[in-house]
Amino acid sequence: MQETVFASIYKEIFPFWEAISDADREYICQNSYHIAYPKGKNIHNGSECSGVIFVRSGSLRLYMMSDEGKDITLYRLHKGDLCMLSASCVLETITFEVLVDAELDSQCCVVDGPAFAAVSKRNPDIRIFALETALSRFSDVMWVMQQILFMSMDKRLAIFLSDESARTGSDTISLTHGQIARYIGSAREVVSRMLKYFAGEGIVEVSRGGVTILDKKRLRELAL
Amino acid sequence: MQETVFASIYKEIFPFWEAISDADREYICQNSYHIAYPKGKNIHNGSECSGVIFVRSGSLRLYMMSDEGKDITLYRLHKGDLCMLSASCVLETITFEVLVDAELDSQCCVVDGPAFAAVSKRNPDIRIFALETALSRFSDVMWVMQQILFMSMDKRLAIFLSDESARTGSDTISLTHGQIARYIGSAREVVSRMLKYFAGEGIVEVSRGGVTILDKKRLRELAL
Repeated sequence: MQETVFASIYKEIFPFWEAISDADREYICQNSYHIAYPKGKNIHNGSECSGVIFVRSGSLRLYMMSDEGKDITLYRLHKGDLCMLSASCVLETITFEVLVDAELDSQCCVVDGPAFAAVSKRNPDIRIFALETALSRFSDVMWVMQQILFMSMDKRLAIFLSDESARTGSDTISLTHGQIARYIGSAREVVSRMLKYFAGEGIVEVSRGGVTILDKKRLRELAL
Repeated sequence: MQETVFASIYKEIFPFWEAISDADREYICQNSYHIAYPKGKNIHNGSECSGVIFVRSGSLRLYMMSDEGKDITLYRLHKGDLCMLSASCVLETITFEVLVDAELDSQCCVVDGPAFAAVSKRNPDIRIFALETALSRFSDVMWVMQQILFMSMDKRLAIFLSDESARTGSDTISLTHGQIARYIGSAREVVSRMLKYFAGEGIVEVSRGGVTILDKKRLRELAL
């Protein structure tokens, strides 16, 4: 009973689930499917309506790409997260193009885009949920933008980590986030969040003992 | 009859106006006010809930600012536009801070933020309208981000000069290099250097009064 499986998942993740009709619940389940994306697979490309993707395991990466092939990570989705920007037919006001890749082997379940759009048209609660989910990512994207544009915080942190590693002759920088923040003239919260961003990119690993550099080449590129 | 004036404005701009109760319409009008902002006035700063601002004349600029005072224009609002990001209490998922200045003398009418939030809680149509209005700006901001992060500076400057010339209907852009830099999210030195390069190529002429476009065709080619 595939549909029972979907219903039990959706009951957990969709706050509107109990408020909509039996027929709409059934319709959503009938237009859902399970899918396994292998690591590295491109799942969504640009403005097509790939559907609403729920991550059951693994990790997806949302990013933008320039004509020259340069890309910038906007944010990642992990277990329990929902990807709404991949359902452009639900969100007519979104006109920019994002790409989504599976960053790890990922198990997902997907509600078909046009089907989700159809039920959201007749249920304001679903529409509000979809809009709020999409809008909440706006803040994440603005954060990335602010860091990269204003502070060159990625650059400053990369320079500091490179220099410190060269100075001590070790790949591990044994400093707290607060100490690093003081060195580069920033706030602890900002450093922690940027280190998390670096870790997500596979550039460093953050542990109790400090920060370990995993990818010197990319760190050096960021520091340029 | 102030309230009649507001009602006639809101009838035009709020698609939900006829669908809500008389009491809610009255409540919105009672919590509205007219205001004239002089050119240069800061209207909204950060995360306070300034309200929903409707531009009746003039122009508002939304921007982000770094700790060092560098700013980046996200978008502008003109006659007939509505500013929703200034009503952070309506949009709980928005956690970043924007600033809004009057760029020209501007006549606006404002619905008090908490009042708008209150009616939007009991009217899904209002909530959907607020979310869609905010989300539609997400695309504008992503466009700016793409311009700044991905595009080369010559292209950015060429686009700005072309757009500004088209907007004002004049070949001369009467702005300082510092002002242009702020508009395109760059540094004054970078803009000056690029303008010198453009001047060397015979594309523009730089004078005390500003920048005059000499070769529109090449400028347009650069902007492609």
